[in-house]
Amino acid sequence: MTTMLTMESLKPEQSTFLKQTYPELTIIPVEALVADQLRQINIIYGYKNTYAKLLTQLLNDPQSKLKWLQTISAGVDYLPLAQLAKKHILVSSASGIHAQAISQNVFGYLLYWARALDKAIAAKTQHQYGLDPQKIVNLDGKTMMIFGTGHIGQQIAKVAQVFNMHVIGVNRSGRAKPSFDQIVDDQGYAALLADVAYIVNVMPLTTATHHFFNAQFFEQVNHQATFINVGRGPSVDETALINALSHGQIKAAALDVFEMEPLPQTSPLWQMNNVLITPHTSGLLEHFRIAFFNVFKPNLAQFMKDGTLIRNQIDYHAGY
Amino acid sequence: MTTMLTMESLKPEQSTFLKQTYPELTIIPVEALVADQLRQINIIYGYKNTYAKLLTQLLNDPQSKLKWLQTISAGVDYLPLAQLAKKHILVSSASGIHAQAISQNVFGYLLYWARALDKAIAAKTQHQYGLDPQKIVNLDGKTMMIFGTGHIGQQIAKVAQVFNMHVIGVNRSGRAKPSFDQIVDDQGYAALLADVAYIVNVMPLTTATHHFFNAQFFEQVNHQATFINVGRGPSVDETALINALSHGQIKAAALDVFEMEPLPQTSPLWQMNNVLITPHTSGLLEHFRIAFFNVFKPNLAQFMKDGTLIRNQIDYHAGY
Repeated sequence: MTTMLTMESLKPEQSTFLKQTYPELTIIPVEALVADQLRQINIIYGYKNTYAKLLTQLLNDPQSKLKWLQTISAGVDYLPLAQLAKKHILVSSASGIHAQAISQNVFGYLLYWARALDKAIAAKTQHQYGLDPQKIVNLDGKTMMIFGTGHIGQQIAKVAQVFNMHVIGVNRSGRAKPSFDQIVDDQGYAALLADVAYIVNVMPLTTATHHFFNAQFFEQVNHQATFINVGRGPSVDETALINALSHGQIKAAALDVFEMEPLPQTSPLWQMNNVLITPHTSGLLEHFRIAFFNVFKPNLAQFMKDGTLIRNQIDYHAGY
Repeated sequence: MTTMLTMESLKPEQSTFLKQTYPELTIIPVEALVADQLRQINIIYGYKNTYAKLLTQLLNDPQSKLKWLQTISAGVDYLPLAQLAKKHILVSSASGIHAQAISQNVFGYLLYWARALDKAIAAKTQHQYGLDPQKIVNLDGKTMMIFGTGHIGQQIAKVAQVFNMHVIGVNRSGRAKPSFDQIVDDQGYAALLADVAYIVNVMPLTTATHHFFNAQFFEQVNHQATFINVGRGPSVDETALINALSHGQIKAAALDVFEMEPLPQTSPLWQMNNVLITPHTSGLLEHFRIAFFNVFKPNLAQFMKDGTLIRNQIDYHAGY
């Protein structure tokens, strides 16, 4: 017998598929979980941080049989990875399923400003037909620098290339990745920052990326640059970002994630006209449950066969 | 001697290039034109409709030596094509140079709504962190139908494909074009309209396309569809469009062109929340003069050689 606790609900056809394919699999929705079932759990489907207490309980129980945690998110920065490593509990992420949505969100931000839709929308309320042509910016010919070259970074790069942008990717190894015109490593990007029009963060949050975008970073940036964070909030020193925005070190920022979420009422970001704020929605999908199950399915097949995973497995040490 | 009247200004380096390459070419900026030079003009560079009177004068003058009209625009619907044909005056358009800008404008409109940026921006003014996930729409998996499969249509299709949309092109011949998943002709599109999420018009305005998008058209459209016009205003029966919008036959419209421009103050479109209005700016480029000159340059070389053109020549009969 294998027991799976579901923290993300299954669609009826998904339940049916699982029952028919794996008759030996018991499924317990988290809402229906009773205490004496805890020790049966082998798999957690759709782990989310709101159930952190439950996970702690399992990790502290020497009789827990938990073997695999499938998270709901692409990033796993909120997990006790060292403890999971010690217990040999496999972790897999939802990496990949958010890439399309995030790329759409990023270009939604950029094009809103580039095509002066803010001005057009304001003019419409006044029934004003007219727009200062000087307010329009072309993406083509501009340089975008993307920090993080995984699924999400690659999809953003792919769109940028169709808009004839020059796309630079930054990753730790400096290794080439599809859809980028150029890849640089941690040492290589700073020299290029002065020519970058759009900076996009999609890096995972690790000790290496915490406060990566700090005062020193923003000092090197082109004053006409727009900063976009669809990665993780704590990768940015928010005080330094607010300074850079208010002192004209950068032109604008579009932010989906924040050092503290929800963004506190007292944050100066709310008041800034050159800032777009979305509440951690850049990765939202209309049909999330389908996309998520499709990531899980091949892993489950492998896990039921030999207890291993074939995709999206987290490296405990790297943190992604 | 060849004389060229410029209605779009040349950059200093462009003037220098022309003088050095074609010493036999005289350039007269339209602002400096005096009456007795009229009969010398062989080429008009950057023709725009504000000079319609001047063109009429030239066309009515039996001694005019005008041989070639290079328009500033992609569409040439405003030109007296029959008269130009009779006088064997070549016409070339700026087709192609607006494609990138227009594709960026189209996705600016779409993503503004799809990623619920309207809601996010409204929430920001209230310092509200939160967004109804139901308001978010994914482009991926949705169908876009593009009327017009030339330069502009193809570039829009290319972007749509990177967003994993299903892209249908509509043209007169039904002939395949790059970047479309499917091409249908005038007879084929109606049956597909019920499944289309985004309708984009980039057709040239001709007698065949005048009021193409009429009441009958909107009756066949999916009620969740968004209509985007970045082609020409009179291709749309605006009264029918307004009806379709106010009766929920379509969900929204993003309009860059109108039956009458500027859009009259009395138009109900100004008041509609499900309408985005831009003032014929979708094709605006930051570096227009460079892009425009690059279209003109190879044609001038050919024209100086043998009086013919090699690209962007208008078919008087087709009207594009």
